[in-house]
Amino acid sequence: MQPVLGEGSDLSEKTINTSIGPPASATENWGFANGGNIGTRIPKLDGPQRISGKVSYVQDITRPRMLHGAILRAGVPSARIVSIDVSAAKLLPGVHAVLTAEDIPLVPFGHGRDNTALKQDFVRCERDELVAVAAEDEVTARKALALVKIELEEIEPILDPFSALEPGARQIHPLHDGNLVLNFDWSGGDISAGEAVSSLVLEDEYHLTWVTHCCLGVSGIIAEFDARGDLLLHSLTQVPFLYRRDLGHIVGLAPECIHIVQPTIGGGFGSKLDIYPYEPIAVFLAKAAGRPVRILFNREEEFIASPTRQPTVARIRAGMDDEGALTFREARFLHDNGGATSWGATTPFVMMQTISSLYRVPHASFHTQAVSTNNPYAGSFRGYGNLQATLAVETNLDRLAAMAARDPLEVRLANAQQAGDISSQGMVFRSCGFKECLRRAGELSSWEGKRKEWGLANPIGASGELRRGIGIASLLHVGGGAKIYRSDGCGTRLSIDHAGKVHLCSGSTEIGQGSETVLAALVADELGVKITDIRVTNDDTRQTPWDVGVHASRTSFIAGNSALKAARQVRTQLLTAASEIVGLPPEQLTLREGGIWDIRTDSAILDLGKLVRELHFSGQHQLVEVQVFYEPPSDYQDERFHGDVSASYAWGVQVVEVEVDMQTGVIQPLRVTSVHDVGRVLNQLGIMGQVEGGVAMGLGYGLTEEMLVRGGILANPTFRDYHLITAPEMPPVQMDFIETDDPEGPRGAKGIGEAPAIPTAAALVNAVAHATGAWINRLPLKPETVLAALSAEGIDSSTLVPPPIRNLAPEKEFPLPVTPSDGAEFISEVM
Amino acid sequence: MQPVLGEGSDLSEKTINTSIGPPASATENWGFANGGNIGTRIPKLDGPQRISGKVSYVQDITRPRMLHGAILRAGVPSARIVSIDVSAAKLLPGVHAVLTAEDIPLVPFGHGRDNTALKQDFVRCERDELVAVAAEDEVTARKALALVKIELEEIEPILDPFSALEPGARQIHPLHDGNLVLNFDWSGGDISAGEAVSSLVLEDEYHLTWVTHCCLGVSGIIAEFDARGDLLLHSLTQVPFLYRRDLGHIVGLAPECIHIVQPTIGGGFGSKLDIYPYEPIAVFLAKAAGRPVRILFNREEEFIASPTRQPTVARIRAGMDDEGALTFREARFLHDNGGATSWGATTPFVMMQTISSLYRVPHASFHTQAVSTNNPYAGSFRGYGNLQATLAVETNLDRLAAMAARDPLEVRLANAQQAGDISSQGMVFRSCGFKECLRRAGELSSWEGKRKEWGLANPIGASGELRRGIGIASLLHVGGGAKIYRSDGCGTRLSIDHAGKVHLCSGSTEIGQGSETVLAALVADELGVKITDIRVTNDDTRQTPWDVGVHASRTSFIAGNSALKAARQVRTQLLTAASEIVGLPPEQLTLREGGIWDIRTDSAILDLGKLVRELHFSGQHQLVEVQVFYEPPSDYQDERFHGDVSASYAWGVQVVEVEVDMQTGVIQPLRVTSVHDVGRVLNQLGIMGQVEGGVAMGLGYGLTEEMLVRGGILANPTFRDYHLITAPEMPPVQMDFIETDDPEGPRGAKGIGEAPAIPTAAALVNAVAHATGAWINRLPLKPETVLAALSAEGIDSSTLVPPPIRNLAPEKEFPLPVTPSDGAEFISEVM
Repeated sequence: MQPVLGEGSDLSEKTINTSIGPPASATENWGFANGGNIGTRIPKLDGPQRISGKVSYVQDITRPRMLHGAILRAGVPSARIVSIDVSAAKLLPGVHAVLTAEDIPLVPFGHGRDNTALKQDFVRCERDELVAVAAEDEVTARKALALVKIELEEIEPILDPFSALEPGARQIHPLHDGNLVLNFDWSGGDISAGEAVSSLVLEDEYHLTWVTHCCLGVSGIIAEFDARGDLLLHSLTQVPFLYRRDLGHIVGLAPECIHIVQPTIGGGFGSKLDIYPYEPIAVFLAKAAGRPVRILFNREEEFIASPTRQPTVARIRAGMDDEGALTFREARFLHDNGGATSWGATTPFVMMQTISSLYRVPHASFHTQAVSTNNPYAGSFRGYGNLQATLAVETNLDRLAAMAARDPLEVRLANAQQAGDISSQGMVFRSCGFKECLRRAGELSSWEGKRKEWGLANPIGASGELRRGIGIASLLHVGGGAKIYRSDGCGTRLSIDHAGKVHLCSGSTEIGQGSETVLAALVADELGVKITDIRVTNDDTRQTPWDVGVHASRTSFIAGNSALKAARQVRTQLLTAASEIVGLPPEQLTLREGGIWDIRTDSAILDLGKLVRELHFSGQHQLVEVQVFYEPPSDYQDERFHGDVSASYAWGVQVVEVEVDMQTGVIQPLRVTSVHDVGRVLNQLGIMGQVEGGVAMGLGYGLTEEMLVRGGILANPTFRDYHLITAPEMPPVQMDFIETDDPEGPRGAKGIGEAPAIPTAAALVNAVAHATGAWINRLPLKPETVLAALSAEGIDSSTLVPPPIRNLAPEKEFPLPVTPSDGAEFISEVM
Repeated sequence: MQPVLGEGSDLSEKTINTSIGPPASATENWGFANGGNIGTRIPKLDGPQRISGKVSYVQDITRPRMLHGAILRAGVPSARIVSIDVSAAKLLPGVHAVLTAEDIPLVPFGHGRDNTALKQDFVRCERDELVAVAAEDEVTARKALALVKIELEEIEPILDPFSALEPGARQIHPLHDGNLVLNFDWSGGDISAGEAVSSLVLEDEYHLTWVTHCCLGVSGIIAEFDARGDLLLHSLTQVPFLYRRDLGHIVGLAPECIHIVQPTIGGGFGSKLDIYPYEPIAVFLAKAAGRPVRILFNREEEFIASPTRQPTVARIRAGMDDEGALTFREARFLHDNGGATSWGATTPFVMMQTISSLYRVPHASFHTQAVSTNNPYAGSFRGYGNLQATLAVETNLDRLAAMAARDPLEVRLANAQQAGDISSQGMVFRSCGFKECLRRAGELSSWEGKRKEWGLANPIGASGELRRGIGIASLLHVGGGAKIYRSDGCGTRLSIDHAGKVHLCSGSTEIGQGSETVLAALVADELGVKITDIRVTNDDTRQTPWDVGVHASRTSFIAGNSALKAARQVRTQLLTAASEIVGLPPEQLTLREGGIWDIRTDSAILDLGKLVRELHFSGQHQLVEVQVFYEPPSDYQDERFHGDVSASYAWGVQVVEVEVDMQTGVIQPLRVTSVHDVGRVLNQLGIMGQVEGGVAMGLGYGLTEEMLVRGGILANPTFRDYHLITAPEMPPVQMDFIETDDPEGPRGAKGIGEAPAIPTAAALVNAVAHATGAWINRLPLKPETVLAALSAEGIDSSTLVPPPIRNLAPEKEFPLPVTPSDGAEFISEVM
């Protein structure tokens, strides 16, 4: 199937050429029979509800007798807490609870067990939570915070990870000796053997800074205890079952006593994978006040107190032989872990997969450390480290190709994996459309012609100040979940009511990614009912069966397989029952158009609702409902990070085309081509949205987004100063999907959630290098950065020949001690 | 088991003597092992939540953008609607929707299909709904109603059913020819054959007026559409699945598109079994305004616009032979159906069972009609007609005994059914403790002594103005559901989580009757877990499996059996799985104290949570969850009302002791003894509450409660003027339970919900007759009624010999034409 997006940015212009499946215009046909929905353009089931403003965000929800919470933060990156006086705040009328660290159990949490809900002795970053208040209304709560008197003794902050690692550096957190929070050390093969057969070796260094998720729905929570002590949380978590386990630990409750209801989530992107201090704070406030408490962030607070993408200094060294084959790859990454440890510290787990397994690399190693500083700290963020790793691998590879005077696309094709390959980390590529992605991306973007016609040698514009460039980058990511917990599975409950309508209750969470629609489509096709006759419940731990959560691009794959498994059981049950009623063998029957059909006569013989009623009201007295659990056939990685961690792997290639103004440094993205091996397209509209959204996020990472952290303080906590790529700025995105029909995937599909964001920045850097001759090793590519890079290379608008390729890494050794890995500890931690 | 309630009215004094089961004081022991909870004093699981005010009544719930609805009612009992001008109301700022009958589909509803949400042409009773408004707040909504101009042309109301039946009477509703709404005609045996062997025949007539449920939580609803057109209702219905079917019909939605969430219900007692106009009105307002709409009644509206108990004129004629055996029973009842037809009209279905089957009566017949008037209309109400029928049967029987100079208790014993009897309606009494109830009630109340020492012949008090009396009455009621719909069953979903905690999801609704606790106790005992480790969900049709609803005293029996069935399946699954893990045969294992125990060594060998985690995380990859449906083995009655309609039948006997002031007519109830065949006591505290509550309700019916409907208008719509029996007025209630261990009942239990309210008024009338010599044939027995009866019989405080028994029925024929029964139609209607 070849859906291709046209060059217009208006969705209506994006006609899709389909070589299989129903025509794109046939949306009125969806809903009937097997195969009717999957692969077509399925509007989001929850779309009308969202568009009409009828969804309930946490901002919309009130609970009886609810109070409003607010948090006072440190506002300085590093200090000793001398005293906190809340006496005046407590006396303010309307205030029901005022909490400091003195008042709550300080159970450490976060991946490094180095965070607490409120801080007791030291401030370690700007956002640190010092006092929390619950009051009748938000204004009173803020007023109460203004009455708190805090005495802080400021301490010189440590603001970069290299300083933090220096001998004698102040230890920021007592838990982390030498400020070392986490250390990963992996190696596969023998680097020196790789070096020995290399004709070219290139060592580059990249500097990647903080960006943040910018969810349009800001953070919020409502905590409420019932009389037996059970906790009801309206929470935006993406991982409700693990969340209640971890939160329960912090607030002293059995996980099963925590009931989580998820309001409509205004964006997740990984930001809601961990517990953050405002969440236990709301619980402690509710406990103290004896009433429900809601905490809502404003936008400034969302910027300051949300997780970030892990800032990284990445050193990569790789070689190529005379044939253009990669010979080895050695990577050392240093992460600024900030003032506390959240999931961001664990992103090397994913980075490593790209270092080890994107392209056939016979010898590879990966050493990385996360180091405490007094900066903001990072969480998980769409791609989970893979954007950083892919930038390093794909830019370095492009430069090796340039040194070897080989075409970047040809080099990639020559080194690409194929189905059947097993990577050095033990990942088994059962389906692999990598080469097809490369070829198709080249074809769609007219790669060959543009590589020749564009570039530094071919100025355009009135005075030759413009150059055009085209760059490419690939990606490898998990596409069938990632087994990092004891179960990577998902439960489904499926029932059919008296009217033949279907209730699908899935453990997986909808965070806007369209899972509700995809799951419903899978079930609708299997049961031969209209997708609009399916109701989905996926937001309430009292109802939904267990699921590990939304992460690792796993929902369509894992929850999809779970839903399919349930639908197939129900299908069998219905056909068997119908067979008895109508006296025909089950294999002569099928489910279609909301009924049982006789295959031989091609006619409807029994309405589905009638069949369900018959089962209920007849002698059988049974309701049609099944509950299943799907566990993917993946493995834990061992303590050496070896194992087939996902049931499937996703591949993709992006080509970015740019126009660069050599005088101003302004980059105009012209077009992005995005081709993905997704196993199979389940929802054309949904997957297009995922790709467009991913490209926008990837472009933002490459071009415009940057948290300006100055002296540990975020200087731009507003959308005016933090520049997201907005709709008018988006270049056209053309896309296609390679359908490799994954053997384990639901209807052959693989995950796509994170993938499209991963290679965009790398392709952009490569395109800018093609246009200007300058390889830029720090993001975002803002005009001043571009101009500085051009200037450093001595390039201006009259230059026509690119300078020679040289190492982007400085001569000095990357200051990263290689110590025994914490890998085993990491694994046991998340399990 | 013999729990006996002491004479104190303080609960703490009510020690219970238990001959089996743990001691009453051992409440700290509940929660462990099989048999640990059932039969003990189990505090309500939802008690703390209710007591602490943490439950959410509909009054506490708001929804985002919610509007407030209000209804304008006719205020006259009979009129033609000339015009309704809502133009000024629509212009009031803050008003979002104003509806009259012109604006909505007038789909007729109610059992007689003679009601609509808003009325178009005619007003047929005071409460009739004419205009509805939705506004930003309740004050604005009321203001808008005040701006409505209504022109009504009043029509002389028809205020009693006899007038309504007179030839030429105005036809109140076009649907009901001759104002006849419903006609039941049943006969078993041959009345004249019965008459032929009678030595005594007595014909009595009773006049029973309106009472109402007086739920402390007034009516309310929140209606809200989502963008796909699905309707979310926060509704107080007792029958969510049938409710959404019927409401869907009115508002034009498939039932399955209606999602019902039940807030905490502040009393049901049958009042929430039907749809009432405010409910579709809220839906139409929500539709018109495009926003959620809440309608809440105030207390006055609750009195005026709630259903009532069916007012009845009951004529009964019965005979007795020389041996004291009942020979025949012939009954004719006429019901004032009021201005519309709700479930009240169908109560003869239950009345008939008492007429036909309370005591062995060889020949019986029952003719009844419900007739339109312009009075309030009746719904279902705890006992569902049985209070009226039992009053007639039991008072008439007592009077036959008096004529025959036989002891009322002896007569009852002589005619009582026994286990194995099949009634003339086909009801099979598989368990029957009727005689034991009679004997035990006599014993507990010291019947024999008091019958002799008290009575009209034995004045007490300073001037002999006081008399004491003791009276008895029995009851027969369904105790195992009543199959009046295609399924009388209940679904249960039961799951166990990683911590070994249990989630019980039952289709049955908690309306304060304590079902949540009983169901949890049944499951806890079966699974050997603490009852507090069970969470119950029973208030949301998107979660709960199908159930026919709370009525017919069926919840403990039907939902209990369903829960037990589920628990037993889970138990088997757990023991089988544990057997594989620990390598012992399943029969050597049991569930106890939250774990798997080895029976032989009497020791715990595996924690339940650990077992569940093992099943999930091991190769099995399964969650522990089952879904079952229990359908009782009962039958529909055929078109002649013959069939074993319930899986079990409950029996009971009450003795009421009174002191009557012969000068003022004031009756002081001294004590009530209530003995019930309940199969088995499941929860001592719960069943005591049911009996006390039922007795209070029965005493109110007999002594104080009365809706003063004057000219079709309710004159006393307040608690000041409508006299409920309050706690300080309650006499001590002593009780005992006969445990016949019903073969089909859950752990042997039968239903008790309605029973205790049924015979109280009859026993009271009989006690007053013992005390005063006067049989009073109209309720309530307020002082002026008592004095009038004494005066009519020529009795005063000096009288010592009661007047002879004479027919309480007037000589004239009961004006009830015997026409073909609508029975078959009734059955098909409810199915």
